[in-house]
Amino acid sequence: MDYARFFQDAVDTLRNERRYRTFAEIERDTARFPHAVWHSPQGERDIVIWCSNDYLGMGCHASVVEAMCETARQAGAGAGGTRNISGNSHAIVALESELADLHGKDAALVFTSGYVSNQTGIATLARLIPDCVILSDALNHNSMIEGVRQAGRDKKVFRHNDLAHLEELLREAGDRPKLIVFESVYSMDGDVAPIGAICDLAERYGAMTYLDEVHAVGMYGPRGAGVAERDGVMHRVDVIEGTLGKAFGVVGGYIAGKRAVMDAVRSYAPGFIFTTALPPAVAAAAAASVRHLKASAAERTRQQAQVAKVKRALDLAGLPQIVTQTHIVPVMVGDAEACKAASDMLLAEHGIYIQPINYPTVPRGTERLRITPGPFHDDALVAQLAAALSDVWSRLGLPFVTRAQAAE
Amino acid sequence: MDYARFFQDAVDTLRNERRYRTFAEIERDTARFPHAVWHSPQGERDIVIWCSNDYLGMGCHASVVEAMCETARQAGAGAGGTRNISGNSHAIVALESELADLHGKDAALVFTSGYVSNQTGIATLARLIPDCVILSDALNHNSMIEGVRQAGRDKKVFRHNDLAHLEELLREAGDRPKLIVFESVYSMDGDVAPIGAICDLAERYGAMTYLDEVHAVGMYGPRGAGVAERDGVMHRVDVIEGTLGKAFGVVGGYIAGKRAVMDAVRSYAPGFIFTTALPPAVAAAAAASVRHLKASAAERTRQQAQVAKVKRALDLAGLPQIVTQTHIVPVMVGDAEACKAASDMLLAEHGIYIQPINYPTVPRGTERLRITPGPFHDDALVAQLAAALSDVWSRLGLPFVTRAQAAE
Repeated sequence: MDYARFFQDAVDTLRNERRYRTFAEIERDTARFPHAVWHSPQGERDIVIWCSNDYLGMGCHASVVEAMCETARQAGAGAGGTRNISGNSHAIVALESELADLHGKDAALVFTSGYVSNQTGIATLARLIPDCVILSDALNHNSMIEGVRQAGRDKKVFRHNDLAHLEELLREAGDRPKLIVFESVYSMDGDVAPIGAICDLAERYGAMTYLDEVHAVGMYGPRGAGVAERDGVMHRVDVIEGTLGKAFGVVGGYIAGKRAVMDAVRSYAPGFIFTTALPPAVAAAAAASVRHLKASAAERTRQQAQVAKVKRALDLAGLPQIVTQTHIVPVMVGDAEACKAASDMLLAEHGIYIQPINYPTVPRGTERLRITPGPFHDDALVAQLAAALSDVWSRLGLPFVTRAQAAE
Repeated sequence: MDYARFFQDAVDTLRNERRYRTFAEIERDTARFPHAVWHSPQGERDIVIWCSNDYLGMGCHASVVEAMCETARQAGAGAGGTRNISGNSHAIVALESELADLHGKDAALVFTSGYVSNQTGIATLARLIPDCVILSDALNHNSMIEGVRQAGRDKKVFRHNDLAHLEELLREAGDRPKLIVFESVYSMDGDVAPIGAICDLAERYGAMTYLDEVHAVGMYGPRGAGVAERDGVMHRVDVIEGTLGKAFGVVGGYIAGKRAVMDAVRSYAPGFIFTTALPPAVAAAAAASVRHLKASAAERTRQQAQVAKVKRALDLAGLPQIVTQTHIVPVMVGDAEACKAASDMLLAEHGIYIQPINYPTVPRGTERLRITPGPFHDDALVAQLAAALSDVWSRLGLPFVTRAQAAE
């Protein structure tokens, strides 16, 4: 049997549908972030990254990098085992304390990634609640969808951020235990959930809440604990999930909540139990980042300022951005090939790296460039970005919008 | 509704069944490995780790640690995105080349962990093969079981390492496409699969093969590519899965195989696509370790020598070890409480850390201490281990074996 054929066919399907992805090979440079080197087919090129999820540049922060190096030299490059079998390092225990404190919860539990924390976290929570119904936002991330699926529980999907629909489903679920699973900042549209109102409904109908703050931790709230902190409702959310790989600049994920809940997930989640722990060096770097952003608002303030400048510059240039209240700036293209062409032209001719976002990450017809301005994108880079996008838009014949349209 | 109650009940169940796990908090020290500091409830204590999966101590190797530090300083503490969205670092691309070369395959694909590589790798492979039947060894690791489960394909479990049973199931599957999923070294018993004979069956019945070598890479074969390399059958295995978190001493997992197969998994596996890439610093450390162990057999030779000494010392002491051909030395206790008590006594009174292995990691009644001697356990430590185990066995009234029994 020609097994290679099956896989070649699967790849060919993607090529035919113009969905085949090529990864740009990037070499970051801590001294010059967001400038980086692109290892292009034609050789090395200097570029500016405008699509990083290292939203605040903390991955390049000296205190974070030095924490990683110091702990690697002291404790080694790896954990050497699962959390249960020799891999429970002093550094990862300290990181969990830091995260529990960040969210004002009893305890926190660190996973190898945010993806795994959602996948095994949601599945395990729902399995431990007898007869549980899961209520899941329609735009939840793939990791949450997989977690819900693996739970094997009844699932009801509510329309994105639609409180009336959520309430209807809660009412229908009657006296059964219910778990509401949602995000704070939805990363592709940059919109924000009404967390307080969802907590109101959860309390009224006796549901437990699970909130993914991966695109918010580090960036919102006085100590960078996320949108729930900013909105003053963090104490009302039962389980908060976050990542160490975006604004905190390292890698890994976590959940935080009541001690009994964390202890149960720790004890029952296969994706936690049967995997090598994060290296102490990674845990120490992440803890340094969390500590820094608890005390310093400078990065958040500067990020918001530069985000506002980018939105203004795109508005003036008539580029069709989705207006958001967050640091995420989606510029709509609405066609997979044009989106790829715009991205390629920006990279090759302007040294600007913005990965095209196509199906299945977003629905067909809503293909976009997703821009994430950070504190290190200075005013000159913002001006250069707007000019480059305008040039590409003109040359590809993509539609501009009038300022009145843009304000809608 | 009192949700905390559900979780408290779940934890109480574990306590009542004597399955509640407490993680020992360990601080490794690169300069003194396998010596480490145990942060015990009574304060810091010096201990010797005898249950690490950093089998060769590579996590403490200067070339590995320095690669991590150098790359962290150059490229930062994190990747800053998924592989598709700005996270495809120069370092991770180089690591994948190193791994493809290690296994003599076209290409390799790195995941955040070995767990994830099995889970999303097996699920994706099986989903891309129309009408696939999965044949899975009965003792496969939880990550493989989850991968098989998530594939949603027909599944047949063959008795552990039982070629006749595997052949029977292959024959029953007829003309349908078949994927055989198995390990080389089974980590809890330390026994080894007949890889060549399984490849014979795969060829005879037209099946594809997926081999987990996580407890073998770095340690077997002339370049440390695993048991399949040692046995001269690596080229006959379709997909080899390995980890960067055990003998290579860092963190992460991978698969290696034909280019079309890797490209398809890269393009379709949700657990690969939607997660932040491993940091360049982690990738560089892992690549340094792989490179070192390709060229140097010193660590493997010394490990095998010390493993043989431990087996001999336990034999002389009449301790009931399972005789294996590998670096894994299980000493049987057969009772969860006695196993925990032996482990606690070893740690508290002898400064020897060997985590008890209880259900569900192994079947009830086969509880054990699992010892993993490495190149840094010198002869004095081996003698100390045998004496400490004998002392604990005597005081707990655990059965010794005569040398004739042990040889069976």
